[in-house]
Amino acid sequence: MQQVALESNAVFVGIEYLAILCWGMSGGLSAIKKGYDDIFSIMLCGWVTALGGGLFRDVMLGDLPPVGITDKGYVLTTLLSGVIAVFAHPEIKKLKWTMTLIDALGLGAFAVSGTEKALAFGTSGMTAIFLGMFTAIAGGLVRDLFLGDVPMIIRDRHLYAVPSFVGCILTVLVWRGAQHGMFDLRSEMMLDVLIVIVVVLIRVLSVAFNVTMPGAMRRTHVYLP
Amino acid sequence: MQQVALESNAVFVGIEYLAILCWGMSGGLSAIKKGYDDIFSIMLCGWVTALGGGLFRDVMLGDLPPVGITDKGYVLTTLLSGVIAVFAHPEIKKLKWTMTLIDALGLGAFAVSGTEKALAFGTSGMTAIFLGMFTAIAGGLVRDLFLGDVPMIIRDRHLYAVPSFVGCILTVLVWRGAQHGMFDLRSEMMLDVLIVIVVVLIRVLSVAFNVTMPGAMRRTHVYLP
Amino acid sequence: MQQVALESNAVFVGIEYLAILCWGMSGGLSAIKKGYDDIFSIMLCGWVTALGGGLFRDVMLGDLPPVGITDKGYVLTTLLSGVIAVFAHPEIKKLKWTMTLIDALGLGAFAVSGTEKALAFGTSGMTAIFLGMFTAIAGGLVRDLFLGDVPMIIRDRHLYAVPSFVGCILTVLVWRGAQHGMFDLRSEMMLDVLIVIVVVLIRVLSVAFNVTMPGAMRRTHVYLP
Repeated sequence: MQQVALESNAVFVGIEYLAILCWGMSGGLSAIKKGYDDIFSIMLCGWVTALGGGLFRDVMLGDLPPVGITDKGYVLTTLLSGVIAVFAHPEIKKLKWTMTLIDALGLGAFAVSGTEKALAFGTSGMTAIFLGMFTAIAGGLVRDLFLGDVPMIIRDRHLYAVPSFVGCILTVLVWRGAQHGMFDLRSEMMLDVLIVIVVVLIRVLSVAFNVTMPGAMRRTHVYLP
Repeated sequence: MQQVALESNAVFVGIEYLAILCWGMSGGLSAIKKGYDDIFSIMLCGWVTALGGGLFRDVMLGDLPPVGITDKGYVLTTLLSGVIAVFAHPEIKKLKWTMTLIDALGLGAFAVSGTEKALAFGTSGMTAIFLGMFTAIAGGLVRDLFLGDVPMIIRDRHLYAVPSFVGCILTVLVWRGAQHGMFDLRSEMMLDVLIVIVVVLIRVLSVAFNVTMPGAMRRTHVYLP
Repeated sequence: MQQVALESNAVFVGIEYLAILCWGMSGGLSAIKKGYDDIFSIMLCGWVTALGGGLFRDVMLGDLPPVGITDKGYVLTTLLSGVIAVFAHPEIKKLKWTMTLIDALGLGAFAVSGTEKALAFGTSGMTAIFLGMFTAIAGGLVRDLFLGDVPMIIRDRHLYAVPSFVGCILTVLVWRGAQHGMFDLRSEMMLDVLIVIVVVLIRVLSVAFNVTMPGAMRRTHVYLP
């Protein structure tokens, strides 16, 4: 089982918990910013941001009930992040770059772990890439819908889906390689962490240098009668 | 099977149907209020308000297809509530306190029945509390998204999630007690109804006396360099 | 297996692919119109419009992972439609009536195929009608939520849900007839195509002659103390 590579990987598990804490705080912060700052709304937005993506993935995979409502470690971490947001929101707001960095870490970690979970359930590579991207993206998307915004992933032209897409593809390749005996468990663990770093780099460089997605072709002439 | 306690409980079943009728009407009324008052929109909003929460719970539990599209009694009740809304919307609007009361009854009944269904499927207490709250809350949340509003559960600071949370916890305790032989079927049935009354009381008192959730700590000084 | 009737029906399969291409383009176009015109947003909105309904149906049926992320033909078609939207959006915009027509074809085809899939999974007629309508409607609904609009199906009073509803009911009747030996495979295939034509006619005539759903009864007098 290749998923062993992920679960026995202390660095990876550490990144995941850090990401859940960070996503939970950023979800809570979004609620506070919009003025929906009672404790329940903060908790709900934190939980959905951090665990909504995995919940969506598990529903698609039929692995029910989903970890977002069964894994005590994950749930307690999101509740903790909500409590932190209630008290420390001015500090969190100031740590803008730190948050962007940890958010990008989460983007990478969940792309990798979501893709690997899907592959471990025997899906095709394409389906695994979809599910990896859902894991990384769907939580923030639902949070934005809850708060009445067009999802950031649609609104913002900076690269967010692209790095997670790259991460998912690389994960499928590494998994396939491991299945064909090209990597042992140790190298696979290192490659998984490397993929996260690649995702973080693409994401952070996109924000830092204002790299945006190309858009629909601007044309005025219409080639139709 | 403890769920027998719920299903053989005529009072409880009565409350559930009353709540579905009331939630269906209030969903239809929301659509009319926003000006989306064609019959299909009224029916859709009524159905999603009344049965959306249970649908979400069943998807999470893997009990598919969900009762929201299979139970003829439930579906006919929501359709009936839509028809009532089409004709009697001015009356429904006037019955504000009656509606608040029946709505609170539904909040309690669905928290209890959702939690018990999850427990009957063998979930942990924490998962059952999540699913009980989803059952009680998710329908109204989706209706608000459909109508372009930030969900009431996020927008409104009055206690709505809290009473359902309390109801779910009490349900888990009663269920555990019954499993350890502390209650017979008869007392469990009475305790279930009692939990609904507790939920209704918290909810109604919160609206009557304007009790609201505490919010994020208001601070201006930031303890960071 | 009656579903054989659908899968061995080249006309039907052709309609479905045409509809997915058209829905994908119209989803991409909606994103461009709202100014969210980076390639990823266009692709996402195209994919969710074209395949979101079937995804929802499969989640309800427990047929996981859903075809929307496993069927390579479908997914490639939506990606293709996204690419077309990126380059040819001014042309697509001009083809208003062609798009309305193909959109109506999709409405009919997905109502029929969604209902038949549900029946093939052994659901009741009522559940199959629900799932047929979800297949036909849910994709556009989620696209509108993503783009910050109240779903067209709620906002617009023209007949859209009604023709799909009629199509689903007729599909259940034809299926039942085939099970009782009233039709052979050949006539069933022809009847399926006929149902699509009926749906298209109702839809297109509703738009052409501005037929709208009746609404909530307008009353000012309240019959309550």
